[in-house]
Amino acid sequence: MAAAAAEQQQQGFRPLDEASLVAYIKATPALAARLGGRLDALTIKEVGDGNLNFVYIVLSDAGSLVIKQALPYIRLVGDSWPMSRERAYFEASALQKHRALCPDHVPEVYHFDRAMSLIGMRYIEPPHIILRKGLVAGVEYPLLAEHMADYMAKTLFFTSLLYNSTTDHKKGVAQYCDNVEMSRLTEQVVFSDPYRVAKYNRCTSPFLDNDAAAVREDAELKLEIAELKSMFIERAQAFLHGDLHTSSIMVTPDSTQVIDPEFAFYGPMGYDIGAFLGNLILAYFSQDGHADQANDRKAYKKWILKTIEDSWNFFHKKFVELWNKHKDGNGEAYLPPIYNSSELLSLVQKKYMTSLFHDSLGFGSAKMIRRIVGIAHVEDFESIEDASKRASCERRALNCAKAILKGRRQFESIEQVIVHVQSFDRD
Amino acid sequence: MAAAAAEQQQQGFRPLDEASLVAYIKATPALAARLGGRLDALTIKEVGDGNLNFVYIVLSDAGSLVIKQALPYIRLVGDSWPMSRERAYFEASALQKHRALCPDHVPEVYHFDRAMSLIGMRYIEPPHIILRKGLVAGVEYPLLAEHMADYMAKTLFFTSLLYNSTTDHKKGVAQYCDNVEMSRLTEQVVFSDPYRVAKYNRCTSPFLDNDAAAVREDAELKLEIAELKSMFIERAQAFLHGDLHTSSIMVTPDSTQVIDPEFAFYGPMGYDIGAFLGNLILAYFSQDGHADQANDRKAYKKWILKTIEDSWNFFHKKFVELWNKHKDGNGEAYLPPIYNSSELLSLVQKKYMTSLFHDSLGFGSAKMIRRIVGIAHVEDFESIEDASKRASCERRALNCAKAILKGRRQFESIEQVIVHVQSFDRD
Repeated sequence: MAAAAAEQQQQGFRPLDEASLVAYIKATPALAARLGGRLDALTIKEVGDGNLNFVYIVLSDAGSLVIKQALPYIRLVGDSWPMSRERAYFEASALQKHRALCPDHVPEVYHFDRAMSLIGMRYIEPPHIILRKGLVAGVEYPLLAEHMADYMAKTLFFTSLLYNSTTDHKKGVAQYCDNVEMSRLTEQVVFSDPYRVAKYNRCTSPFLDNDAAAVREDAELKLEIAELKSMFIERAQAFLHGDLHTSSIMVTPDSTQVIDPEFAFYGPMGYDIGAFLGNLILAYFSQDGHADQANDRKAYKKWILKTIEDSWNFFHKKFVELWNKHKDGNGEAYLPPIYNSSELLSLVQKKYMTSLFHDSLGFGSAKMIRRIVGIAHVEDFESIEDASKRASCERRALNCAKAILKGRRQFESIEQVIVHVQSFDRD
Repeated sequence: MAAAAAEQQQQGFRPLDEASLVAYIKATPALAARLGGRLDALTIKEVGDGNLNFVYIVLSDAGSLVIKQALPYIRLVGDSWPMSRERAYFEASALQKHRALCPDHVPEVYHFDRAMSLIGMRYIEPPHIILRKGLVAGVEYPLLAEHMADYMAKTLFFTSLLYNSTTDHKKGVAQYCDNVEMSRLTEQVVFSDPYRVAKYNRCTSPFLDNDAAAVREDAELKLEIAELKSMFIERAQAFLHGDLHTSSIMVTPDSTQVIDPEFAFYGPMGYDIGAFLGNLILAYFSQDGHADQANDRKAYKKWILKTIEDSWNFFHKKFVELWNKHKDGNGEAYLPPIYNSSELLSLVQKKYMTSLFHDSLGFGSAKMIRRIVGIAHVEDFESIEDASKRASCERRALNCAKAILKGRRQFESIEQVIVHVQSFDRD
């Protein structure tokens, strides 16, 4: 079935350029309407700075939208690394599913064309910028922790067995099993390549050559990463974004919008939470590389730590609130006649949240490590021009991540993690 | 899709009786051939002593076969408890899949008719009997441990990420997500009902009334069972039989045949292993109820313990042998360039097998508990006529299971478990 459907869709596919894009919009009422029908003087800008797709911003004098088209390979690498265009389907359906759960922080999809692997969606307008760029620039986002806690609590809780029947849950699991190509990409670049010699691995050489080699020879680390990798593949705990780092989030001081869920699948919740927290920790360790005479970044580093702390604590609070609110609903995991006292429910929640915390720390560390010795690096560090200084920042992040990954089960609170992170913040 | 397919199949379905069964066989060459075409003097016997289906043994003077037909409800309860006939499809496909992996211990499917929910398969001829009946009768099966270890090692290893790519794995996961009705039945009768007041629960009353109530009020037990239940639903570790107790196994001293995998799905390996070991422990605790002047069952109890011990140890050995043999294959979990020394591989295997051991003990205990205070009891105990004596046997099994479930992570070997089991074997 899947193969046959893919075959059919092959036929309707053509990659758009700016000219054919205009024709496409004119022929598509759902898109034309978003531009107020003013289609004769469109401004079109290609802005796909990600690794996988073409992204066009389309503006008329009466409206705006974004067109995102998936190509059958990874853009960063080129057509030597093929990648199913069906990821556009999973991205569109994930945006719709997550927006239904958390409309404040997920943009609207206006139009989806499966044959063309094309999504028409809200243009997340300036002054929104990619969060990672804001973190590099040293901008504080006072509502970020609260917004992301809200997004993570809602998308994870409402797609878990705490809220759903097994029947609904397994329907979702089966649907997103088909997004396996994207999951395999993650398996390779997050859980495998950093721990072996691999073609696309790189690090700030020669400074980190020994550090990268040490990762490949660290038996304890490899034991831990194996456990996380198996959990990533086997455990369908909730419907994840699947790539929730700081470049998948657009922000202003007032608004937080989560984009790019093309890796969406049913997996362990800690993978999403860890992606967000881990990338904030990377941002933290990069700050010394951005410090200058005008701004020593010390206050900003404190803000990042506070944001990490608040993100987990707010998430914890909101998640447990949702659990308490819906404890008598259809969720299969903890039936009310069994978990029938507030003491028992509270015990159960403590165990669940502790386990989720440790998963998040594990996955977060794995995401940090792969950004330093794997294929895809982060602008937080890449924008530090002095390679020696960059390597020094990266090394602290790497050592911090390794220690968290190995010792994650010892942490009892995010505050302890913050202390731990700070302990690596010395030359 | 699934609903539409189910609808279509509804139309071709009719429950067979002995007369219409003969007509069906005559019209089905794959079945007629197995009877040597000698269809005029068939002997037909309905033997469905299970809870879910009709089962006919069909003999001619030139051959034999079994016809199994699923009805759209649970036979034990009647049509008040509807149950999808599609389970026959999952059973047939599981038999075929498992037979391909372990032909010595899985019977051949001759014919499958999805519309009729009908399987034609090998008649597992006398002197084969259901293992549970052999255990009640006190019969030793010297090859049982080795055969079951072989079956479990092959079916679990070859359907896990130790052997398969994620792509193949997720294809299987998606397929068997549709067997969710059967999974839900397990969730209810194994992981939920024993821990709450439920309509069909029963126990040897009044003797065990307090014991059953204590199960429902045991917070620590409920914490543990919640963890196992979530793992059962969420963790797609391998393709399981799904109901591997001692009535799903037919034996002679030389032959072991595993039947009835209609609960098949991708789940945690420990669920299958635990089902088998847990039911052997139930058999052990039932023996005092079967002792009489002719046979005190003491030697037989030793044989059961030895079989439990050997089953795990042989399984462990075979499973690790398969792992070593195929370590350079397509398995996604532990890539050879990462787990690249025999020391590291051995560390990884130790961690994996320890975790699997603890899962097996947990699920095994859960399966024991539910057979004493849940809906479906076992002949091992039911055939003890003296209710007081039966209750005494059951109580020891129940207390043993509760202790294993709570303390399973402390056990380092099956020998320690055996000592633990024996410690409950006193009045």
